[in-house]
Amino acid sequence: MIDQLVSNIKKTNAPIVVGLDPNIDYVPSYILDQAIKNQGETLEAAGAAIWEYNKGIIDACYDLIPAVKPQVAMYEQFGLPGLEAFKKTVDYCKEKGLVVIGDVKRGDIGSTSTAYAKGHLGGVTIGNTKCYGFNEDFVTVNPYLGTDGVKPFVDVCKEENKGIFVLVKTSNPSSGEFQDQKVEGKPLYEMVGAYVDKWGADVVGTSGYSAVGAVVGATYPEMGKVLRKIMPKAYILVPGYGAQGGTADGLKPYFNEDGLGAIVNSSRGIICAYKQDKYASFGEKNYADASRQAVIDMREDINSIF
Amino acid sequence: MIDQLVSNIKKTNAPIVVGLDPNIDYVPSYILDQAIKNQGETLEAAGAAIWEYNKGIIDACYDLIPAVKPQVAMYEQFGLPGLEAFKKTVDYCKEKGLVVIGDVKRGDIGSTSTAYAKGHLGGVTIGNTKCYGFNEDFVTVNPYLGTDGVKPFVDVCKEENKGIFVLVKTSNPSSGEFQDQKVEGKPLYEMVGAYVDKWGADVVGTSGYSAVGAVVGATYPEMGKVLRKIMPKAYILVPGYGAQGGTADGLKPYFNEDGLGAIVNSSRGIICAYKQDKYASFGEKNYADASRQAVIDMREDINSIF
Repeated sequence: MIDQLVSNIKKTNAPIVVGLDPNIDYVPSYILDQAIKNQGETLEAAGAAIWEYNKGIIDACYDLIPAVKPQVAMYEQFGLPGLEAFKKTVDYCKEKGLVVIGDVKRGDIGSTSTAYAKGHLGGVTIGNTKCYGFNEDFVTVNPYLGTDGVKPFVDVCKEENKGIFVLVKTSNPSSGEFQDQKVEGKPLYEMVGAYVDKWGADVVGTSGYSAVGAVVGATYPEMGKVLRKIMPKAYILVPGYGAQGGTADGLKPYFNEDGLGAIVNSSRGIICAYKQDKYASFGEKNYADASRQAVIDMREDINSIF
Repeated sequence: MIDQLVSNIKKTNAPIVVGLDPNIDYVPSYILDQAIKNQGETLEAAGAAIWEYNKGIIDACYDLIPAVKPQVAMYEQFGLPGLEAFKKTVDYCKEKGLVVIGDVKRGDIGSTSTAYAKGHLGGVTIGNTKCYGFNEDFVTVNPYLGTDGVKPFVDVCKEENKGIFVLVKTSNPSSGEFQDQKVEGKPLYEMVGAYVDKWGADVVGTSGYSAVGAVVGATYPEMGKVLRKIMPKAYILVPGYGAQGGTADGLKPYFNEDGLGAIVNSSRGIICAYKQDKYASFGEKNYADASRQAVIDMREDINSIF
């Protein structure tokens, strides 16, 4: 699947991923109002609205981008109807040829991590039939529990040709509280980075990249530079561009010289483009066209660094 | 809610929580076979089977215990039908007066952590109506992202009178890879413990305990002793008793002198008791009675330390 991601990135010439994080406030009011008219002020209405909203954006952008990253929390907040919308979104994006990175940040131990890995990347066997739960292509994984927590995901990746991105250095202001603490003279995130390199060593694809990638926030380019060297085979998923303050120029260290090795996420900046002054002329009804234009602009911005 | 938990523990004289982690291999074959007969070899059948299995255990044990801890991964592996079973389990346990600790180990940043908190502890507003997703009483939270990741949960806890348990030192063998690393001369988990104390400082209930508790594995009693002192107001949720090797004697340091301050989880040891030699005489059909006996035995074992 890492090879598929690399191939999609080359094809689109766009090392970007659209974060499908449908906050209810982002959904155009005409969509939400109609859903409430149909189903009342219910979780079901919210689920229907965010699915319609997503579908519009996917239809408008799928030919320009290699991948999407739905943030499951934004669906989980609406309970079961929200997760139904998540599943529909995952399935639809895969139909459209997009690589789907489930931003689930799961992580537990042993058989519990295996259960998460099966639910999101692999399948379970019921009687003699293999059944698939959410079936994303990649998921994000939290490393705090160590190898016991991550290894079950890697095992399922091997069996199913899937991949993971392990949180190494996140983009938020307080990420340093624990991640930057000095351990044997070096910050903890460097140690986690070294583990990522180790965990991914025997799942390297023909692209030269590993099924075990890393999350490193765009807001810390100096750290990105160091981590790029510590994890030479890891694809780096970079959140924090745009809305969180990361700039295109700061992204250089995350990439290798061939323009590969990193994929930059933008959520709000794309899916909520119609609410920005810059794209306001599209109007609410054409929110998806505004997203398409924002993707084109982001691609240009990112590619300007090469 | 922490006060409710303490009150339930006093009432039952049982500082124990039953982990409702329905691995499909635990479900008695007559239940699974019937579900497959009704719905085929599908996720729906698995969901129906684990719900029936859980219901049996809850009905047999609810009067003896203060709380349950469903592990969401075990439901999530069955996709949407699994999560439907999770929701039914949460609702039914609450009906029975049990405190429900959703073992979800979520953790993200800012608005994303807020979304998780709303989905599991609070609610979302659709139009003018507040709707609840999963609505557990407590959830477990991963601290790797720092205060930005935990604070949104605490905010929702305040509004909704709910609680969290933050992962401090987990019970698994490799937990030390990052958690035990020395930071300024002390292990990282002690630093996380100090944050737990800080995060919980202004949500202390009338019981004297905070809505912000901690997860500390039963497998590390020496560390439990230190952490008990660092986080005097935190209730400690203790996994790893029984199947993972933690003993009743080793649990002493986690408790305060009044016998409060900790709640010990057992999953497999209770819900899969009928598969142990000790309880084999119950037979598969009476799996729930075997669980009841295992709860009684565990209560006696834990209370022997006081």
